[in-house]
Amino acid sequence: MIRIEVQIGCSSGNINYNFAMSLLIAGTVAFDSIETPFGKTERIIGGAATYCSLAASYFTDSSRVISAVGDDFPREYIRLLNDHGIDTTGLITIPGKKSFYWSGKYSEDMNFRETLVTELNVIEDFTPQIPQEYQDTEYLMLGNLAPDIQISVIEQLQIRPRLIVLDTMNFWIENTPASLKKVISMVDVLAVNDAEARQLSGEYSLPKAAKKIHALGPEYLIIKKGENGALLFSGKKMFFAPALPLEDVFDPTGAGDSFAGGFMGYLVKTGELNFESMKNAIITGAAMASFCVEKFGTDNLINLDKSAIYSRVREFSELVRFQDMEI
Amino acid sequence: MIRIEVQIGCSSGNINYNFAMSLLIAGTVAFDSIETPFGKTERIIGGAATYCSLAASYFTDSSRVISAVGDDFPREYIRLLNDHGIDTTGLITIPGKKSFYWSGKYSEDMNFRETLVTELNVIEDFTPQIPQEYQDTEYLMLGNLAPDIQISVIEQLQIRPRLIVLDTMNFWIENTPASLKKVISMVDVLAVNDAEARQLSGEYSLPKAAKKIHALGPEYLIIKKGENGALLFSGKKMFFAPALPLEDVFDPTGAGDSFAGGFMGYLVKTGELNFESMKNAIITGAAMASFCVEKFGTDNLINLDKSAIYSRVREFSELVRFQDMEI
Repeated sequence: MIRIEVQIGCSSGNINYNFAMSLLIAGTVAFDSIETPFGKTERIIGGAATYCSLAASYFTDSSRVISAVGDDFPREYIRLLNDHGIDTTGLITIPGKKSFYWSGKYSEDMNFRETLVTELNVIEDFTPQIPQEYQDTEYLMLGNLAPDIQISVIEQLQIRPRLIVLDTMNFWIENTPASLKKVISMVDVLAVNDAEARQLSGEYSLPKAAKKIHALGPEYLIIKKGENGALLFSGKKMFFAPALPLEDVFDPTGAGDSFAGGFMGYLVKTGELNFESMKNAIITGAAMASFCVEKFGTDNLINLDKSAIYSRVREFSELVRFQDMEI
Repeated sequence: MIRIEVQIGCSSGNINYNFAMSLLIAGTVAFDSIETPFGKTERIIGGAATYCSLAASYFTDSSRVISAVGDDFPREYIRLLNDHGIDTTGLITIPGKKSFYWSGKYSEDMNFRETLVTELNVIEDFTPQIPQEYQDTEYLMLGNLAPDIQISVIEQLQIRPRLIVLDTMNFWIENTPASLKKVISMVDVLAVNDAEARQLSGEYSLPKAAKKIHALGPEYLIIKKGENGALLFSGKKMFFAPALPLEDVFDPTGAGDSFAGGFMGYLVKTGELNFESMKNAIITGAAMASFCVEKFGTDNLINLDKSAIYSRVREFSELVRFQDMEI
């Protein structure tokens, strides 16, 4: 089901399809217990797909989640997603299993965290099944999962989505490099942090790392640097998005996934796929990440409005704007 | 001697004096031995005042250096400065003393270096004497030195310069906090790295650290983050300048001092002192730092031209530019 809303136009050589695009997010839906210098929470809703879909919900009302939870997962947590227009047909509940559980503790330097507990539980033998009604997926976000699971999601879609974005982490670079390289070769955008880009490419220089990673397949590479912003590479083009220096960072959990949600949401909303739209998508992602970290868990992601998001994006623009100058 | 070249104008509420402004740089002139994964040098010219004055020389021909070297310091190193239009009347040679010597080694992550040798030598009991002909100094750059020496330089100037910029480091924060706070209260701009801003203010959040540091005196605070760029704070205003991701970083020695030189040079050249001109000055500083690190020591700073610098500044502009967007 694709509702064609507006015309098919053309600008700057890129065809703009203004469909009501469908976004599919594969990733974890989980319990998190978080401790930071500012407070502590117990078993709140967490997981990559949760943060990503909530952040995307401000830009599209056609997002869907592929994940699994145990029968310990509260119905009101799933309703929270549905209340934000997120389709959870693909979020299955496995009887007799417990939900994925993560517990972590941050020190004052929020760039570093200690994982206290990781219980994979239901995720351990998770085999995603794409519901038939998700076959029209145009935008696919593959959150951090085992590369074989990510490949399975791509292969189950009979028509390749317009855009596939992949998140991964050092664990898969070290433990399943062959599967990881395979899935990387199947996607359009890879998003990793700077340490992972260096590890994956064997290059310390990020522009050199980007060249090697482009050669693995992805046309676009996003290198996330936490409080130091994010870089976008495509061929010889390069863009830098700062992170907004914030007075208060209460809880960085989910920042990367909120970034991914804002990024995907912007692209789904505009339907444009080119270097300029990717830049704007990254700024939107950075804005959503900045909201995420200002409160605990998903607290700040569930009550935003468009004007607050727009103001935040303007702050990013102001932060880096400088006048033309003569030297 | 102040040559008044053009009119006194007024734009955006700021008076622009287009004088041939004089820049005084107090800091070390030294020998450096540097080892990086890409090579090794022995006893090349180094020191904060060297890098700073060379970087500034592309923007003003009226810069002067206050420093001391031993009688082991080669005349051709001093001629190198003079050839770039730098006045070295204030660079005194102390007979029977050796020059300041620093030796360091960088690992592949160029953000970290190991100091192998620091011999203060002539700098240990350095008492700066400002020559009479430097009394017209309008712009003063106080490179990293003992706070009491920095205070002495300020107090020897009978007319307060239009702008005083201070560089310092963790050593003085830990060992001479009272003198450091005194000199901080006397300056307009403080430039430190992020760890130092946090240490000095006791605040992890950089916007909060900036508030506390403003309260100590400086109207402007620059927080340098190495390969992650630099932040400028003034009151509630904030600006972020990225660092340019480079293919090859051969030697980061002097990057911070080249930054300071480009920063001061731009301000001296334009004569404007306000938040907008400080932004441009920071971008210019970041451009000069990016040239510095591409070759060993001062190799890349001594043979630049205006068009290369202008192209580099344009790269910074391109790096962060994104189109207005609708959310």
